[in-house]
Amino acid sequence: MGVDATRRYRLLLACPDEPGIIYRVSGALTARACNIVAFDQHSEGVAGGYYFMRAEFDAPIPFDTQGFEAQLAELLPQEGSSWRLRAQAQRHRLGILVSRESHCLEELAWQVERQDIDAEIKVVISNHARLESIASRFRLPFYVVPVSPETKAAAESQMLDILRRYEVDTVVLARYMQILTERFIAAYPRQIINIHHSFLPAFVGANPYQQAYDRGVKLIGATAHYVTSELDAGPIIEQDVHRVDHRHQVEDFKRIGRYVERMVLARAVRWHVEDRVLPHGNRTIVFPI
Amino acid sequence: MGVDATRRYRLLLACPDEPGIIYRVSGALTARACNIVAFDQHSEGVAGGYYFMRAEFDAPIPFDTQGFEAQLAELLPQEGSSWRLRAQAQRHRLGILVSRESHCLEELAWQVERQDIDAEIKVVISNHARLESIASRFRLPFYVVPVSPETKAAAESQMLDILRRYEVDTVVLARYMQILTERFIAAYPRQIINIHHSFLPAFVGANPYQQAYDRGVKLIGATAHYVTSELDAGPIIEQDVHRVDHRHQVEDFKRIGRYVERMVLARAVRWHVEDRVLPHGNRTIVFPI
Amino acid sequence: MGVDATRRYRLLLACPDEPGIIYRVSGALTARACNIVAFDQHSEGVAGGYYFMRAEFDAPIPFDTQGFEAQLAELLPQEGSSWRLRAQAQRHRLGILVSRESHCLEELAWQVERQDIDAEIKVVISNHARLESIASRFRLPFYVVPVSPETKAAAESQMLDILRRYEVDTVVLARYMQILTERFIAAYPRQIINIHHSFLPAFVGANPYQQAYDRGVKLIGATAHYVTSELDAGPIIEQDVHRVDHRHQVEDFKRIGRYVERMVLARAVRWHVEDRVLPHGNRTIVFPI
Amino acid sequence: MGVDATRRYRLLLACPDEPGIIYRVSGALTARACNIVAFDQHSEGVAGGYYFMRAEFDAPIPFDTQGFEAQLAELLPQEGSSWRLRAQAQRHRLGILVSRESHCLEELAWQVERQDIDAEIKVVISNHARLESIASRFRLPFYVVPVSPETKAAAESQMLDILRRYEVDTVVLARYMQILTERFIAAYPRQIINIHHSFLPAFVGANPYQQAYDRGVKLIGATAHYVTSELDAGPIIEQDVHRVDHRHQVEDFKRIGRYVERMVLARAVRWHVEDRVLPHGNRTIVFPI
Repeated sequence: MGVDATRRYRLLLACPDEPGIIYRVSGALTARACNIVAFDQHSEGVAGGYYFMRAEFDAPIPFDTQGFEAQLAELLPQEGSSWRLRAQAQRHRLGILVSRESHCLEELAWQVERQDIDAEIKVVISNHARLESIASRFRLPFYVVPVSPETKAAAESQMLDILRRYEVDTVVLARYMQILTERFIAAYPRQIINIHHSFLPAFVGANPYQQAYDRGVKLIGATAHYVTSELDAGPIIEQDVHRVDHRHQVEDFKRIGRYVERMVLARAVRWHVEDRVLPHGNRTIVFPI
Repeated sequence: MGVDATRRYRLLLACPDEPGIIYRVSGALTARACNIVAFDQHSEGVAGGYYFMRAEFDAPIPFDTQGFEAQLAELLPQEGSSWRLRAQAQRHRLGILVSRESHCLEELAWQVERQDIDAEIKVVISNHARLESIASRFRLPFYVVPVSPETKAAAESQMLDILRRYEVDTVVLARYMQILTERFIAAYPRQIINIHHSFLPAFVGANPYQQAYDRGVKLIGATAHYVTSELDAGPIIEQDVHRVDHRHQVEDFKRIGRYVERMVLARAVRWHVEDRVLPHGNRTIVFPI
Repeated sequence: MGVDATRRYRLLLACPDEPGIIYRVSGALTARACNIVAFDQHSEGVAGGYYFMRAEFDAPIPFDTQGFEAQLAELLPQEGSSWRLRAQAQRHRLGILVSRESHCLEELAWQVERQDIDAEIKVVISNHARLESIASRFRLPFYVVPVSPETKAAAESQMLDILRRYEVDTVVLARYMQILTERFIAAYPRQIINIHHSFLPAFVGANPYQQAYDRGVKLIGATAHYVTSELDAGPIIEQDVHRVDHRHQVEDFKRIGRYVERMVLARAVRWHVEDRVLPHGNRTIVFPI
Repeated sequence: MGVDATRRYRLLLACPDEPGIIYRVSGALTARACNIVAFDQHSEGVAGGYYFMRAEFDAPIPFDTQGFEAQLAELLPQEGSSWRLRAQAQRHRLGILVSRESHCLEELAWQVERQDIDAEIKVVISNHARLESIASRFRLPFYVVPVSPETKAAAESQMLDILRRYEVDTVVLARYMQILTERFIAAYPRQIINIHHSFLPAFVGANPYQQAYDRGVKLIGATAHYVTSELDAGPIIEQDVHRVDHRHQVEDFKRIGRYVERMVLARAVRWHVEDRVLPHGNRTIVFPI
């Protein structure tokens, strides 16, 4: 909006809480002629608690990111601080893992295509050939990597190779129906997003819609979360629900669920790629818009 | 609305499904000069499944209810059929059990007072004296029946005595924090409604808001259900949720939860006293408005 | 589900209310060995009011539809009754009109493809070439019919020709940004569904999101309605809203609105093609699932 | 939480946007040994736009509020800046105006009683005697000031006298069915909150539920807004909706609407008394929790 050239950055930081952090960080930015255009923060508000900040700012060109990060290291508590600085123009690179259900892949491809999700889908990997036509509709590279109990280790190695080749930084499990090993998960810490088709922690494990039907619930839901080594137990990014009643059979739950799932997953991915999500222990701080 | 005197009835029935039930029941009503003003039905739609019906109708005065019920017994399958016929003017008689939290009691008293819930609160029983002032605000009889592990059996006997004295037909656990014994529950089969402060089956048992906070969920909820001998496992009547985020502490969950709880419980009680709920196994068929 | 061959039908009827209609219609079906599998009804409940019914039933093969309809004509009040009987297998044939925005077309094509909407899209017509690639993705015939004030009459004639050639029975305005003439509307009475990008009747006319922004509303919405000759005033089929706040600019309203619009339109079209919508005056009776 | 004595303050400010405001304000607070515990901000993000901030902070005792405010005046742009500094312990003093409908008064009294709304209700004024018993239930002073077209000026003077006597700073129109004159409104600029029983701007004026019914909408709503001299047109603080369908008559709209109205009004009042609402032109910036 200005006459001078600037470039937009996003800073996401977490550190042990102490007075003056806003002042010091905003001071460092102001001294470097940066203009803060969006600012969110959260303090746990308890002794020994953490402080979380997200700032979007326009920096002059050139902007000495190394110098700024070195200064941050000085300004923040020495122990337990972490941050991520990213130019908005440097978009996240997504790898999407799918099985046979297309709706989550389609929604993501669609929202990326229309730039509602400001990221790039670099590759789609599946353990079945079924969704190749969907991937080709959106001109996305598609790889089939079959998985069986015997071949799991080799299959995961192959998948990691593909993801690295495409320089993927975020993996989305868009109804990928295989459980990943710790080794795979460790390669993308807090960078794998899964959509679980229930309102977690209700109905963990297989067939959540059947479980929900059997329990006679009046709302069904979906949960997007970061994947950790414990199944369906990682930090939750987003959840939503939809009303059902006695007229709905399991098939109706699946139909309705498809729409909840794709909306919840798309929101979670959008917030992740806009650097709006800070996992902290088993919780997330999310600054959504 | 008519010139002739009529009286409104509600028929709620469940029976093994077979063709022609609508025809036979509506025929019996038509032959008795009854006018159906509201009609809902549900068929499980599977072999061996059940059929459920709710009809509101205006019957001429006098209306031979015994004759009509005898006819129903003939028209419906001999095995497994059940129904309830009730004059709308014969309102449900509620007994409310509370502990220290007032919000559910207040909401129920209020909605009954303004006739949004078309029932009568006959008595309030608590294991603490704390809510006496709330009960007296609404001029409701209030009894304190303390409960300890040693006195539980005697206390429940005393409570059952009070409920019988007031001819209560439906017991509402409006944040009553004691677990009832099977003996108590058996005295009011499918007539005890509880509000659980979570989105069941997530977070059964104690301190559900703390559990929800620890899990980092993005929605909290409440569940109204019929009480069975298995804790927090009876047929669900109604559920709802409210959005929370990282800024909300457990105390905020409780504050927000109070509003979800009282709305969910009030809806469940309203549907129950308007004869809109049919429990069937561990599920409910609800014909809400 | 049975051994005998049957075929599923849907009956949708509206008539002046009088006692006994359920009995007579269900009797006619039972006498013809039809099994009612879903049944909804609504009575306006006032003197001179209307009665509305939707029945899904399995009829034996062959089923004398003409005879049944002749019988209906006898059973229902002579004046003011109307009905529609349709075999479920005889799917609705949709013609979709679009301009430059793709999201509604994509959602409909997608839901039809996965049979969540049980209909056929026979043709897509646009006043711009832009969405041709979307139509071809789903292998849908696509016609460009440019419209200018001078050519409007000719353009509409051309569009009606195309719609007739494809034997379209329902026209969906999926963000078609031209106002149709009375002549066009008269060709598809109560069979043209439009999506308006506001919570009608707020913000009729052009640029509803700008209007909503200027008014500072906290919720934005979308409305699917049947098109009548009065702009944005036809019977409403479905509406929904999404929360916004001060951080959202008009562009954000449009982004969020795209998801509300496509969900609302898809629901309305699904209900229409499943014969669940009865327009009556300027209102609709909807029996949704 | 600390050992040293502190007192919590809230600062709410609006000023023309320019770089460095966060830095300067947080610097002033840090220099005075204040600890920011909650911080929200919004920038309109356009040339000539405004900047809005809300900070909650713990200040040491004593805290030189005059000195701090003088410093703010120096730090912020000379033209167009405004702010409000308030000790959290200094609670808002509410005057509630009602007519015959009790539900909004009851909800407010109730939430204040349980301190969900951290304010004091100093007085209730009505143009009817009907709600006296409700006020006395909560031990609130209650005045009847009848209003007729001829006595309106005198009545408003009398009401202003009462409000001043109780040192009311915020007036809540809790279903007060009289239109206030400009003179009255000018006495409480942006300090009068009204609940309108529709989703504004739909259905302005009288009988919004009848209007909604006649239009056949599928959602009804309520709107809390600051009162300005133009009827139903002031800045919106909060809105919400509830689903209705063809079965609901105008009386049902009113019943459902009561719950939407009291929730929406209670939220708006809570945010107002926690200094979370900044009116700006005809819009509001709300930092809710």
